[in-house]
Amino acid sequence: MTDQLFTIPLWADLTAVGLGGVQGALFASGFRGQRRLDLLGVALIGTVMGLGGGLIRDLLLAVRPSMLSNNWYLITAVAAALVGMLLAGPLRRVNSLIVVLDALVIGLFGAFGTVKALALGVPLVPAVFVGICAAVGGGILRDVIMGLPVAIMHVGSLYAVAAGAGCVLLVVLHAFGIDYIVSGFAGFALTAVIRILAVVFDLSLPEQRMLYRR
Amino acid sequence: MTDQLFTIPLWADLTAVGLGGVQGALFASGFRGQRRLDLLGVALIGTVMGLGGGLIRDLLLAVRPSMLSNNWYLITAVAAALVGMLLAGPLRRVNSLIVVLDALVIGLFGAFGTVKALALGVPLVPAVFVGICAAVGGGILRDVIMGLPVAIMHVGSLYAVAAGAGCVLLVVLHAFGIDYIVSGFAGFALTAVIRILAVVFDLSLPEQRMLYRR
Amino acid sequence: MTDQLFTIPLWADLTAVGLGGVQGALFASGFRGQRRLDLLGVALIGTVMGLGGGLIRDLLLAVRPSMLSNNWYLITAVAAALVGMLLAGPLRRVNSLIVVLDALVIGLFGAFGTVKALALGVPLVPAVFVGICAAVGGGILRDVIMGLPVAIMHVGSLYAVAAGAGCVLLVVLHAFGIDYIVSGFAGFALTAVIRILAVVFDLSLPEQRMLYRR
Repeated sequence: MTDQLFTIPLWADLTAVGLGGVQGALFASGFRGQRRLDLLGVALIGTVMGLGGGLIRDLLLAVRPSMLSNNWYLITAVAAALVGMLLAGPLRRVNSLIVVLDALVIGLFGAFGTVKALALGVPLVPAVFVGICAAVGGGILRDVIMGLPVAIMHVGSLYAVAAGAGCVLLVVLHAFGIDYIVSGFAGFALTAVIRILAVVFDLSLPEQRMLYRR
Repeated sequence: MTDQLFTIPLWADLTAVGLGGVQGALFASGFRGQRRLDLLGVALIGTVMGLGGGLIRDLLLAVRPSMLSNNWYLITAVAAALVGMLLAGPLRRVNSLIVVLDALVIGLFGAFGTVKALALGVPLVPAVFVGICAAVGGGILRDVIMGLPVAIMHVGSLYAVAAGAGCVLLVVLHAFGIDYIVSGFAGFALTAVIRILAVVFDLSLPEQRMLYRR
Repeated sequence: MTDQLFTIPLWADLTAVGLGGVQGALFASGFRGQRRLDLLGVALIGTVMGLGGGLIRDLLLAVRPSMLSNNWYLITAVAAALVGMLLAGPLRRVNSLIVVLDALVIGLFGAFGTVKALALGVPLVPAVFVGICAAVGGGILRDVIMGLPVAIMHVGSLYAVAAGAGCVLLVVLHAFGIDYIVSGFAGFALTAVIRILAVVFDLSLPEQRMLYRR
């Protein structure tokens, strides 16, 4: 069964890690001053957002985390977090970039999580669960570490909904025999589009709104 | 050694998951309005309470979580959380049901956690530890996700005491050669009875009291 | 390759567990009254600090936690936490003991985490990451469980810096072919010295300062 042989290409995984790191550092930079996040804290949040989704996915699947398998995951995440910190100054008000990056990252981690679970022989329903956890896990880790109320629990469950829709589409396509690349891309795209549309139609960015309200 | 062959029957595990899901959703429903837990949040808390104990047990034991092994764990937990949400309206004031369910769930997760650890060759003392973590883990996860002070750390350590007493009884009986079914049932019963007696004699429901006080 | 055969001696691991347990209970005792940590809570925090670092290390490495491999880890941690509680009365104002113990514990967990990762075949960069997580993990677990802001995120990132410096030294020495005992001791010593010097020159004990400020 070729299922067992499928692995996510390293460049794709590192792309998700890099985008997550940039987004996390941009997000955390908006906080400076209010809660005394120092530069190292911002870099750490960026790194957590870059690596958290994959780490939670691998912990759930009880396999050695892919971020421990070679040096590039950590280097990419830390470098991306630094890039995010540098961009944070000029881009402070350009929230749309944060939103788009966020949508891409959720979509990528959701799709990769679901695909890896399926490839390891996990049934359809828990594979969707792993995908959702991978998609929202970085954000939950961030909120717990920063001592914020976990965003996903309040107001903005659209995160989980967007991730869930994409992961369900992925497993349904996979169940009909469509290969991982096509079904994975479809799941990624659906999640990202739902997230972006939700923002465009002002259903959301609830997380950011909530934070600014405080 | 037959130890290595013993597995908890699926129906028993799913019973614990279902009761945990109902109890978690009932508990979380009492919150609505105060902290803006939307319906999806209540469902999520119910699901976390149904699956959290088993998940923590399996993460500690470094085995693939049983909830990923087939589709029924997640379906049971989500369905139970929905049942809990439906019951929450009529039963809002019937705290005794929440208490009894809570006692049963702690007892079941404690016993299953200890038995699974023993069956995997874990020695007696850490097997009790795994049982206690499985019993109280769902509640800790819930508190962390909801941003509450972790109940077990304050006031109501009776949770851990009740779970610990049952798990110790279980490993002692097991050490005397009594099989898993009898010793597991004895451990479950002791934990549940201690929890219920604690409430009857007003030593407790400290968690709920604390929450209402806020 | 002898790498794969290297294991940390039990007595060394138990020393780290014991020092961590004493330090954690001393630290938690300073809280009594303010947040209603009962005695069982103090014992629990001590135990978490004794076992948390090793547990996080082993979860990351996806191996069965060493604390589940025999009875002595838990017995040592609980006994150490009780010793810490007994010492807390006479020593309440002797902060320097807490600081020194803290530095030793961070150094030990950092070195053991890095060595175990290297011995399991993890590359250099993620091995440093595992070491840092093992060093600061107990403290993060404690803060999350106690509902405190995670100390490492604010003000005093010197924790992570001290741990990181020691772990980097360790992997560099190891890469030059120096054996685990010498390189591990060098890494441990560097971390502990940085922590203690930071306190002596008043760069720190930021965690404690922050807590007293509340």
